[in-house]
Amino acid sequence: MSLTMYERIGADGRRPSPFSWRIRYALAHKGVEPEFRHVRFADVETIRALSGQHFVPILTDGGTVIHDSWNIAGYLEDRFPKRPSLFGGDGGRGLARLINHWADNTLGTAIRRLIAADFILCLDAGDRGYYRRSREAAFGCTLEDYCADRPRWLAEFATVTAPLERTLSEQPYVTGAAPGYADYILFSVFQYARLGCPDEFLDDGSALRRWRDGLVQAFDRLGDRYPGYPAA
Amino acid sequence: MSLTMYERIGADGRRPSPFSWRIRYALAHKGVEPEFRHVRFADVETIRALSGQHFVPILTDGGTVIHDSWNIAGYLEDRFPKRPSLFGGDGGRGLARLINHWADNTLGTAIRRLIAADFILCLDAGDRGYYRRSREAAFGCTLEDYCADRPRWLAEFATVTAPLERTLSEQPYVTGAAPGYADYILFSVFQYARLGCPDEFLDDGSALRRWRDGLVQAFDRLGDRYPGYPAA
Repeated sequence: MSLTMYERIGADGRRPSPFSWRIRYALAHKGVEPEFRHVRFADVETIRALSGQHFVPILTDGGTVIHDSWNIAGYLEDRFPKRPSLFGGDGGRGLARLINHWADNTLGTAIRRLIAADFILCLDAGDRGYYRRSREAAFGCTLEDYCADRPRWLAEFATVTAPLERTLSEQPYVTGAAPGYADYILFSVFQYARLGCPDEFLDDGSALRRWRDGLVQAFDRLGDRYPGYPAA
Repeated sequence: MSLTMYERIGADGRRPSPFSWRIRYALAHKGVEPEFRHVRFADVETIRALSGQHFVPILTDGGTVIHDSWNIAGYLEDRFPKRPSLFGGDGGRGLARLINHWADNTLGTAIRRLIAADFILCLDAGDRGYYRRSREAAFGCTLEDYCADRPRWLAEFATVTAPLERTLSEQPYVTGAAPGYADYILFSVFQYARLGCPDEFLDDGSALRRWRDGLVQAFDRLGDRYPGYPAA
């Protein structure tokens, strides 16, 4: 076994990327420890040379290069079939794909509206110009304007997360009695908020807060292994 | 086996309720044929006498009364464990609960904004007053005002359904290679739109349209067994 994971790294060893967090938890769930190699936020060309596209994480396994976190999770499930399942059966694997798209499109967008302006301080000073330029081009406005209408985006966040809160008030994990890859997908987006911004969006006593804080502690406190949001 | 399902019935034998549709498909998936008993839309007291609450469908199995479609689906899975699984494993069952809440809260609300005013014509003339009064009290406005800003609600529908469209462009069913209860949950909400309004919201050639139309045809054309929206 010679797995290597290429992951994005921020300022002072920070790990803000949600896509890396879900794979870091998937690897821990499978009990697999790859070699980690770091790429900076703006290292687009390094990543492209390796995989023909510019997103991380990337996993290599000998000569095999896998990119896109969804593909990596499926690869790990099939490569280590005797280790604990990430999906809990074929039905769980199918539905996790929908959760994956929902997490990236719907939940991720709702959270980005709350944190995109704060997030820049997690990045290495040399990466901030790239982040600001690329995001402002995508958003069609400044980072600050993108996040400006905070009451609206807090209300949107409450609406988007309501089905999660209900589910987690009825069962311990999204996948059921034990956590699975769908939990790690969703957790990774809340972890991106937790590490990428100074504010707490999950109410004390909510089911979502209990679930998220539990997953932070899982796997020997994996969620707290790297620095949090920079102190003011 | 002496299963009885109490379901809501509209004008001229119409069956518009999404909660009944998901159970009707779950029963077909399990190959179980209950006796069906009909309740009218406004028969709140009949239903309350049977189950202590006022929602349908209700399933009775000898002396056992099960209400709430989610509980009925779980009951059918456990009662008929050797028939084809509705969930495809424990992971699929856990995630289906999230899909259930998302379908009722998020997708259902988006669709209701498009059809609530048209929907009243599916109901028996004697039920329309109850529907209008109860919904207008809940919405805080007339049915017509609730649906008035159609461009806004069409855009909301496109945003809400985007993760479903992506998922179904990558795999045949939400549950994976074969349909499961999560497909029936989601289908039931699109079926509510299909039978409850004269308009088509799914684009020709979309993955969602292919999936929905396929499920209409499933189980010997179950989705077309009852009358469609009343002709103008």
